[in-house]
This record gives sequence, structure tokens and C-alpha cells, in this order.
Amino acid sequence: MRVLSGIQPSGSLHLGNYFGMMSKMIDYQEHEELFCFIANYHAQTSVSDGKVLARGTLEAAANFLALGLDPEKSIFWVQSDVPEVQELAWLLSNFTPMGLLERCHSYKDKVAQGIKPNHGLFAYPVLMTADILLFKSDRVPVGKDQKQHLEVARDIAIKFNNEYGDIFVVPEAEIDDEVATIPGLDGQKMSKSYGNTIDLFQDEKALRKQVMRIVTAPIPVEEPKDPDQCNVYKIYRLFLDKSADQELRKRYQAGGLGFGEVKQELFETIRDTFAPFAVRRNELLGDLEGLRSILAEGSDRARGVANRTLGKVRKKTGLAY
Amino acid sequence: MRVLSGIQPSGSLHLGNYFGMMSKMIDYQEHEELFCFIANYHAQTSVSDGKVLARGTLEAAANFLALGLDPEKSIFWVQSDVPEVQELAWLLSNFTPMGLLERCHSYKDKVAQGIKPNHGLFAYPVLMTADILLFKSDRVPVGKDQKQHLEVARDIAIKFNNEYGDIFVVPEAEIDDEVATIPGLDGQKMSKSYGNTIDLFQDEKALRKQVMRIVTAPIPVEEPKDPDQCNVYKIYRLFLDKSADQELRKRYQAGGLGFGEVKQELFETIRDTFAPFAVRRNELLGDLEGLRSILAEGSDRARGVANRTLGKVRKKTGLAY
Repeated sequence: MRVLSGIQPSGSLHLGNYFGMMSKMIDYQEHEELFCFIANYHAQTSVSDGKVLARGTLEAAANFLALGLDPEKSIFWVQSDVPEVQELAWLLSNFTPMGLLERCHSYKDKVAQGIKPNHGLFAYPVLMTADILLFKSDRVPVGKDQKQHLEVARDIAIKFNNEYGDIFVVPEAEIDDEVATIPGLDGQKMSKSYGNTIDLFQDEKALRKQVMRIVTAPIPVEEPKDPDQCNVYKIYRLFLDKSADQELRKRYQAGGLGFGEVKQELFETIRDTFAPFAVRRNELLGDLEGLRSILAEGSDRARGVANRTLGKVRKKTGLAY
Repeated sequence: MRVLSGIQPSGSLHLGNYFGMMSKMIDYQEHEELFCFIANYHAQTSVSDGKVLARGTLEAAANFLALGLDPEKSIFWVQSDVPEVQELAWLLSNFTPMGLLERCHSYKDKVAQGIKPNHGLFAYPVLMTADILLFKSDRVPVGKDQKQHLEVARDIAIKFNNEYGDIFVVPEAEIDDEVATIPGLDGQKMSKSYGNTIDLFQDEKALRKQVMRIVTAPIPVEEPKDPDQCNVYKIYRLFLDKSADQELRKRYQAGGLGFGEVKQELFETIRDTFAPFAVRRNELLGDLEGLRSILAEGSDRARGVANRTLGKVRKKTGLAY
């Protein structure tokens, strides 16, 4: 089965990104045909500073590779290195009723958040559809907020296939309900826009400071505590196997566990878990030519797949004359 | 000065196209730097039959070349052979406020005419802007109906330049008021959608039949006639120099001129004017490989210009990492 996933290069990487999406995505490479790309075109709907975007793209690539994405086991590329996707987006646009886009919540939500109401933002679901269909993806893991866009992609694929025959695979969404449940420092969903993140790659001091800011209830040390009501526990458990999780729960319930103590443990766990990845990440970012060449190989492979699809589409729609 | 012009490949060529646009466009090659393309992407907003589009593209190319477009003096290509324009359209989309597109009359008019309200049709002015800006066009000759789209192109170019510095030439429209005045068989503007055209390339019998269908007033042969009230005259004069025009006017005013007689003359004039072009057109369409190779050379040249612009834009917007 072919699984496609993209991540925007904007913003630094936090635990919510990692446990919510990246670690799961990287796992796919072991048992599925994984197509994974850095969505720099999409990021342009909110990032206009070219230097920020370029640096973010390199960092996102280094993040993925450092955290275990294997460019031999998967196809890994930067979206704009296969610009063919833009041509497909145009071709699909002619099979996309305006009403379908006008009904998308995401556009309205983003405008409400203060992102400029530009045509790029409005047209985003068509480009996302092109990403999916160009690579004949069977399955697309998405959060709940992207569910509607997957429906758009399916609608467009079906409309196009009705006109020209079975060109596209009609993709299935894989909705992961757990994505939303990774809490930030304040217990809300961890998100850069809420300013409540714990970032993966930062120096020890800054990391410790973030962890110490996790909001806890004013319960004296000696009293028993309900782990399920504790933001520290909710984050800590992401790192624990079943037996370590049970042990931690018991310590909460027994009383005598201070939040300062458990925060210190969590800080050390995060630091030690990601330290080797940080080393690898720094190596990758210290050799940008090497990093670019990994990405170039990936885009060559992606382009091969893309052009097989696009060749058929160009023929059917009459661009090949 | 660089002049850009595109023509959609849909529909056969009629006198309205020829005198309204093509002959003027071809003239530009003598004194300006002419960039001329067959707008097959744009045609896809209304043509979904791939065979019709592909054949229309070849015929449009043959029409231009037969009628005198010189691929040495100008840069002549098929729009989709420089797909870079789609990437630029995306980049511009992020500088295109939705309100700008929502105010475009053309979208509403076309939907009112029965064209499907698809996103491609709505996004058309952005693609047109990309066509213009990619080739750094100074001047774009357009009919009145396209004036608003040129304003959109100017707005987007200025917005983009404000963000990234002087990347784009801000294009000037060249509005040709005469375009609308070429009448069809019934005196309305000649247009395929009114079914009132006289087509350039058709057999003698069909051409004569069209000319004979020109609507005239029921005035007896012997009476004097006002040429300015006569549809036959209005078409005929397009072929006449000043003195021949004066002579014809006198024959109208003197009386004794029958509409059948003047229609026969007009038919012969059209036939004789376009006969050599028809021969050349048939030669071109009889050697499709040769025709494709002329177009391939043109798109190579166009792509060279396109990639110089796009390279700068990719760098500024952060796609080059």
C-alpha cells in the first residue's frame, strides 16, 4: 500500500509534531511504500520570508532524516523540487466546483486566525489533491482538521476519472484520533500557535525551562494525585512502555511525588531520548551539500513516479498534441 | 518593447479573429519583440475533450504560421510546453487577495453563459498574470473584455515587487477599441458563440454559402444604398485600401448595385485573399512532425526566458534552499 504524507517546514519541531505525526510516519517505511515530502509550497500560504522558508526546509529535512526517516526505504523529497504538481493542480482545477472549495472550513478558520485571505490559501485543497493524486497514494494519514480536504481530493479524483477513465487512485483518509490528544504546557493541544510547546531540538537549559513551565494543580507533595488529571504525566507517558507507565501511575497515586521531581525526570527523559538525534541533525545541517544531494536523489525518484501519472493526464486532457 | 499575446486554440478561425487580433499581432513581429503563445491551458476552462484540444492546438499553430507569423522574428510556443507558468501562478496566488478575483466580471459572465463554475475558471486571471509576468512583457494587447484582467496582473506585480524588490515588469494594457467592431453575418459582433462567423479556412462552397447568408435590408437593386448601414460593406471594407473603399461606397450610393452581386465579389475576395494561406496551412498540417518541431524550438526559447525570471522568484520566495 502506498502511503503519502507531507509536513510544512514552518516552525521548529515540538513533541506534538513528533508523537502526533512524525514518529508514526517514519514507522510506515517499515511496512508500507512511504512517500514523504516537505510541503514548502503549502507553507507559502503563510510564510513570505524567503530566508525563513529556505532555512525551515533544510531543518525539516534534517529533522526527518535525524529521527530515522530512511531515504532508501521511502521516497523523500521537497515539494517544489517536483513542480509538476502545480501543472496537475491546474488540470484538477477544471474539475473542482467552486462550491467544493467554498465549503472548506480550513480556509475560513485560517482567515479568522489572521492569515491573509489570498487565493493561495483558498486554492490550497486543490494543490493538496494534486500532491495526493500525482503519486497515486492509496492512504493519507491526516488529522481531523484535514479530513474535509481528503473528501475534496476524493471528489475531484472521482470527477476526473468519470471524464477520462481510471487515471487516479481514489485515496482513503486515515484519520488518527490520537493526534489531538498530545497536550501542551497548559493542557491544551500542543501547538506553536498556542505558545505551549516543548521543542525537540534546543539546548538543555531552554528545554528544562519549558518542562518546568508545565501547568500543574496546587496539590501538596504528600497527597495522592490522579495522573490522568496531570499535564506532566500526559506528556511523560508518551515516552514510557506499559510497565514503566504503570509504575509512574502508582507513584502518583501513592502520594509523596512532587511535581518538581517528576518534571525533572521528564526533562532528563526528553533530553536523553533526543540527544543522539540532535547529534545526527547537527551533522546533517553541518553538511548542507550532502543534505541537498539526499534531497535531490529523492526528488528524482518522486519525479519519475509523477511523470508517469502526468504523462497519462496530459494525453487524456489534450495537452500532448 | 516586449509584446505578449496568447490565443485560445478552441474553435476554427473566422474573420473576426483575423482582423480583430491575429493580423495585428503578426504585424508586431516587424517592429517589436513579440512573444506569442497558444493558450491551451486557458482553453481547458471550457474544453474537456482532449482530442478536440490537441487538434485545435495544432490547427491554431498552423493558422498562425500560415498567416505569416515568423518563428524566427518572434517567440512562438504552446503554453503547456512551458509548464513553469503553473509554478509561477502558485507563487502569485499567495499575493492575490481573493477580493481581487471575486470582483472579476469575466468569471460571472462566463458562468452566466453556461460554462461550469469551476475553480480553473475562477483562477484564470492568476494564470494569465503568470503568463504576462513570466516573460516580463511590457505591453499586452487585449480587447475591452480583458482590461480588468490586466489590472489584476498589474496589482499582483506591484504587490509582489513591494515584497521582494523589482522582480517583475508591471505590464501596460493596449486596449484596441476596434476589436468589437467587426460584424458577423447578422451585424452583431462576429463570434463563434453567436453562430454568425465567416471562417477563413473552408472549402469554396461552404465559404460562399456563409457569405450569401449575410443579412441585408430589403432595398431594390436600383435604389441608392447607405454603405454604413450594410453588413456586406462593413465586412468587405476590411479587405480594401482607401481608394477601393471609396469606389465601393460610390457604387452603393449610385444605386444599381445588388446585394447578390456585392456578396459574390466579397466571396471571391475572401477566397482569393486566403487561398495561398490555405495552401501553406495544409502543408503544415500535412507534416505534423515538422510543425511540432517548429513549436519545440519556440518553447525552448520561451523556456529560457521563463527560467531566468523563475530562478529569481524561486530564490526570493525561498523555494531555492
